[in-house]
Amino acid sequence: VRGAGAIGATAAFGLAQGIRASRAKTLAGLRKDALKVCAALAQARPTAVDPVNAMNSMLAELESADSPIHFTELALTLAEAFADEDVHHCLELGRHGAQLVKNGHRILTHCNAGALAFVDVGSATAPIYEAHRRGRRFVVFCDETRPRCQGASLTAWELGQHGVEHAVIADNAAGYLMQRGQIDCVIVGSDRVVARTGDAANKIGTYTKAVLAHRHGIPFYVAIPLSTLDWQLENGAQIPIEERDPEEVLSAWGWNRRTGRTQVRIAAPGSRALNPGFDVTPGALITGFITPRGIIAPQALWTNRQRLGCPRAI
Amino acid sequence: VRGAGAIGATAAFGLAQGIRASRAKTLAGLRKDALKVCAALAQARPTAVDPVNAMNSMLAELESADSPIHFTELALTLAEAFADEDVHHCLELGRHGAQLVKNGHRILTHCNAGALAFVDVGSATAPIYEAHRRGRRFVVFCDETRPRCQGASLTAWELGQHGVEHAVIADNAAGYLMQRGQIDCVIVGSDRVVARTGDAANKIGTYTKAVLAHRHGIPFYVAIPLSTLDWQLENGAQIPIEERDPEEVLSAWGWNRRTGRTQVRIAAPGSRALNPGFDVTPGALITGFITPRGIIAPQALWTNRQRLGCPRAI
Repeated sequence: VRGAGAIGATAAFGLAQGIRASRAKTLAGLRKDALKVCAALAQARPTAVDPVNAMNSMLAELESADSPIHFTELALTLAEAFADEDVHHCLELGRHGAQLVKNGHRILTHCNAGALAFVDVGSATAPIYEAHRRGRRFVVFCDETRPRCQGASLTAWELGQHGVEHAVIADNAAGYLMQRGQIDCVIVGSDRVVARTGDAANKIGTYTKAVLAHRHGIPFYVAIPLSTLDWQLENGAQIPIEERDPEEVLSAWGWNRRTGRTQVRIAAPGSRALNPGFDVTPGALITGFITPRGIIAPQALWTNRQRLGCPRAI
Repeated sequence: VRGAGAIGATAAFGLAQGIRASRAKTLAGLRKDALKVCAALAQARPTAVDPVNAMNSMLAELESADSPIHFTELALTLAEAFADEDVHHCLELGRHGAQLVKNGHRILTHCNAGALAFVDVGSATAPIYEAHRRGRRFVVFCDETRPRCQGASLTAWELGQHGVEHAVIADNAAGYLMQRGQIDCVIVGSDRVVARTGDAANKIGTYTKAVLAHRHGIPFYVAIPLSTLDWQLENGAQIPIEERDPEEVLSAWGWNRRTGRTQVRIAAPGSRALNPGFDVTPGALITGFITPRGIIAPQALWTNRQRLGCPRAI
């Protein structure tokens, strides 16, 4: 499972399932097992905060359970509520963000923060789908997003299914298009936004696009449901960056008519690779966050924390 | 054939071969056919200037031929001289550039400006090979360089053959490494440097790395033999950028144990792509040019034009 909202919902259902599978007979025993499940699921994707937020809000609500059966049933209800909320948040942020997508616009996006990354609709794609529904004409450039090529495969596929005009470009080509005045706006998703600073972790290469957009005076937006906001960290440098299998960089995966889904080695034999999965874009490079509560400047996330669902305990 | 020096030498030998294949019996007829060959070969790679410079300098020297047989023989001699000069220039610029490669350095390079792109030694790799020969210890990060992955395949292979420590990274990862202080220096090659401004065309994505290096205060060098200098154009915006087959972006090529050299489609079915082959880095983002005549600042190329082999006619 991949994508901020999708892994958040999966963690929520995973926690409900873990509780259901527990052999504990008491509330205290169930709570202890629930914490173990949370720790295991949180470790699976260290850069992301949606799973942690989803599970923490469930744990807080589960405090009210007054019996083991109530605890187990409530966990499932809460997981379903999280998944429903994800769709709702994406629709809401799409409604706010659609105003940014004008007729004739050429929009750049990186990786896949689409319906395939959430329970539905997507974050970066939500304003795009909503603007398309309102009849606006525009084109989306999809960074292919090596090494896993989520832009070339997933985002391009989604946009094609929706009938949104788009073109795939190599990650190397975005700077060229910006230099020629051929990008009007960048919209990406995020795996974790530090609310105190507006620093945003996202798929490797996002930082590069933000630096380029800044140089060219192109607005750079990050679209997120509220579950992507991190209320704990002091700044983006504290976000753990997942190191992934170097094989992803040394190879490519794709489809061949004769051999079907096929892995090919693109790197020289014997060469090694580094494969950081994410990078952090400082808030100073971000024009605004497209949220279910409106478009909010990086420095205004913290001052708007109550409206943005900051837990009372913080 | 690919690579600034290699296509320069190939154009030179192509011109010699075209003259040899001519049926003209007179000097005037041979000259006319030579011009046709030059026009055809120059069209093959519009962004590059090495082929044009190689052929133009041959045409100038061929003025001295006093018979058809002399014209034909001289053309081959001049082509051989160009190829020899390419090796010599690369060795010389390597000698000058090696001082930039310090012990412990982490050097980023883009695409392949190595022995495989020249008659020998390479431009961006020349200082690396020379510093390695002098016993310096350092590591080279090779941008994989989508869509054709010349960094992952060619540069990584070359460096491996020379025993130079290196790692392949996704094009998306360079910004992350710079942000963490893990790149000390960038060295790339070029397909055409506008001597009047220091604007340098190179493989798509080079501009992005220059913007990132500039933001992080990392020196950015462009290594070139003299044949890569363009003495005609006013600025980099005049350099024609080759648009390549979109299939390069929609697919990847690599090696599979079962199927050998294999093409796989990485993009969604039906999606289109844009594929600009090169971009132009403005001189203002370039720390210096590593040339056979020393390391020269962008704004000093023109004032040093005689030393750098600017033709008398300009």
